[in-house]
Amino acid sequence: MNRVASTGSSSTFGSVFAGLKPHMAALDAFLREQIEAFEPEIRDMADYCIDTSGKRIRPALVFLSGTNSDGEPNPDLVRAAAVVELVHLATLVHDDIMDQADLRRNRETAARKFGPTAAVLLGDALFSHALHLAAQFPTTEVCETVSESTRKVCAGEIVQTMRRGSDRVTRDDYWRIIDLKTAELFRVSCFLGARLSGVSDTYVADVARFGRHLGIAYQIYDDLADFFGDEQRIGKTLGTDFASGKLTLPLLVLHEKLPSADRAGLIEEICGRRAGDMPSRLRQMAELGVFEGVEAEVQREIESAEEALDPWPDEAPTPLLGELCGVLRVQIGALRSRP
Amino acid sequence: MNRVASTGSSSTFGSVFAGLKPHMAALDAFLREQIEAFEPEIRDMADYCIDTSGKRIRPALVFLSGTNSDGEPNPDLVRAAAVVELVHLATLVHDDIMDQADLRRNRETAARKFGPTAAVLLGDALFSHALHLAAQFPTTEVCETVSESTRKVCAGEIVQTMRRGSDRVTRDDYWRIIDLKTAELFRVSCFLGARLSGVSDTYVADVARFGRHLGIAYQIYDDLADFFGDEQRIGKTLGTDFASGKLTLPLLVLHEKLPSADRAGLIEEICGRRAGDMPSRLRQMAELGVFEGVEAEVQREIESAEEALDPWPDEAPTPLLGELCGVLRVQIGALRSRP
Repeated sequence: MNRVASTGSSSTFGSVFAGLKPHMAALDAFLREQIEAFEPEIRDMADYCIDTSGKRIRPALVFLSGTNSDGEPNPDLVRAAAVVELVHLATLVHDDIMDQADLRRNRETAARKFGPTAAVLLGDALFSHALHLAAQFPTTEVCETVSESTRKVCAGEIVQTMRRGSDRVTRDDYWRIIDLKTAELFRVSCFLGARLSGVSDTYVADVARFGRHLGIAYQIYDDLADFFGDEQRIGKTLGTDFASGKLTLPLLVLHEKLPSADRAGLIEEICGRRAGDMPSRLRQMAELGVFEGVEAEVQREIESAEEALDPWPDEAPTPLLGELCGVLRVQIGALRSRP
Repeated sequence: MNRVASTGSSSTFGSVFAGLKPHMAALDAFLREQIEAFEPEIRDMADYCIDTSGKRIRPALVFLSGTNSDGEPNPDLVRAAAVVELVHLATLVHDDIMDQADLRRNRETAARKFGPTAAVLLGDALFSHALHLAAQFPTTEVCETVSESTRKVCAGEIVQTMRRGSDRVTRDDYWRIIDLKTAELFRVSCFLGARLSGVSDTYVADVARFGRHLGIAYQIYDDLADFFGDEQRIGKTLGTDFASGKLTLPLLVLHEKLPSADRAGLIEEICGRRAGDMPSRLRQMAELGVFEGVEAEVQREIESAEEALDPWPDEAPTPLLGELCGVLRVQIGALRSRP
């Protein structure tokens, strides 16, 4: 078995992130410094997990939501970006144990390299260090916010795990899961970027709301790409969610659109009682306009994200964050035009 | 397979803890309130993990190290006690996954009840909530201290895991592992109790040092009980460390005392290359005075703990913490006099 979690060969938001090079370089340097904080015996393992090849979407949101993202990297934002990235990396380390993934970003997962036992503990050590960095701010707010977000991310993953292979997942359940497991950390990344830039509470709340809707849109896009993506470009095997019994929006929409007599068969495949027939499900999706149904939901979330920033046309982050919405729209268009 | 992690049928420090009844009741009530903080979908699971039947050694250290432990429970100490207990419970949830334990304290482990995947995430959620509570204090100090301690506990567990079944564990390695995995949380419990009582920095440092030595002594006692305990009284099967390839002090001392020709056989058993012969190893331990060798080390650590409090004879916690040392001495005596 050689299951691939993600090869990370593409960077969805690459074009927008290009302006963040000095910030990302500062983040890389900061993360590398953190290795020293780990006990000598686990330093190499921590180094391996603190991978600097990822997409860095959450740190980018911290930087872009800060009002000074065009100047010198603000050390507070660099630290906050490191906190959210470490929390994210810790969840990946634990996810890869549970998914029994062997590869991520073209190299062995921590679970594969060090064994699942050490990987559980390494994930814990990364979490702990993230919270330790969060405690370096003058007040407890970052610690409080990040620890609560982390709990929500875990809750989302637990709900997803418990529902795996279940035929009783509704659209509400789906939204709830992605809100917790993905949108929450997007939200908190934007919140921290704005908050640490000393802007008004109303503005901070609106930027956080932007992050939440962008996170939901991004996760739906990601779930859509699992069916309609280009394996080379999105960097993972198509249909892995379907194969693992994850009931994502494309399957929910397909289920809604299928004639009622054909629904039981799909449920059997999702629940793993029968092998999933990806080619025929893709054909049905094309015939029944599933792509368009899901795309409409992504668009709705992107619009909600944009609306959150409507009252703030003159703030520096607004056009940068708005550009992320544009890029996500282009990415979805690219999925639609796949041959 | 029905592996038992711990039945918790005994409370080592029961007699000293008797005076803490109102504090423990306040802690129980506080922990029960915390369930509400978890997302509704995982509340029952969190409730199951936030078990109130444990020994509560770490919370007791928080209370006993506070200068006002004879009065009404101080809400700050109750919260700090909840933080260290939640961190400890989270490590137990993760330990039981890795040890594939089915039972702890006479009921199913979370790993067994909810599956290993959910248990990894539940442990994460407990960690996150512990840090969230730590962020409720006016300054970042509790968060900073606890997150660093948590990382050390994980590092200790990682080192122990990596060395399992290895023949190259020295006394220094053993001390290092138990210092991280056990003594660190004992130390931080004492630190927080004293710190939150508004006493001098010197006193706080000495109480923390007491906690560290007590933690080392307690872990050595626990490792000794794995060979010399009464299964009924200590509440777990003897020889589980030996069987799982954990190189603890009794085995290290036995190795040192064996004629060099007989050492290779012991190493083979520890490394799992040959079945461990517990009865004959126990006989050798008795003949070679292994108990006394290990006991001397526990005594040395207990003395170091007591010495840390020598400059503070008039502080309220001193006699209470000193009593813990006395009880641990009695417990060791009870192991020696086992028929």
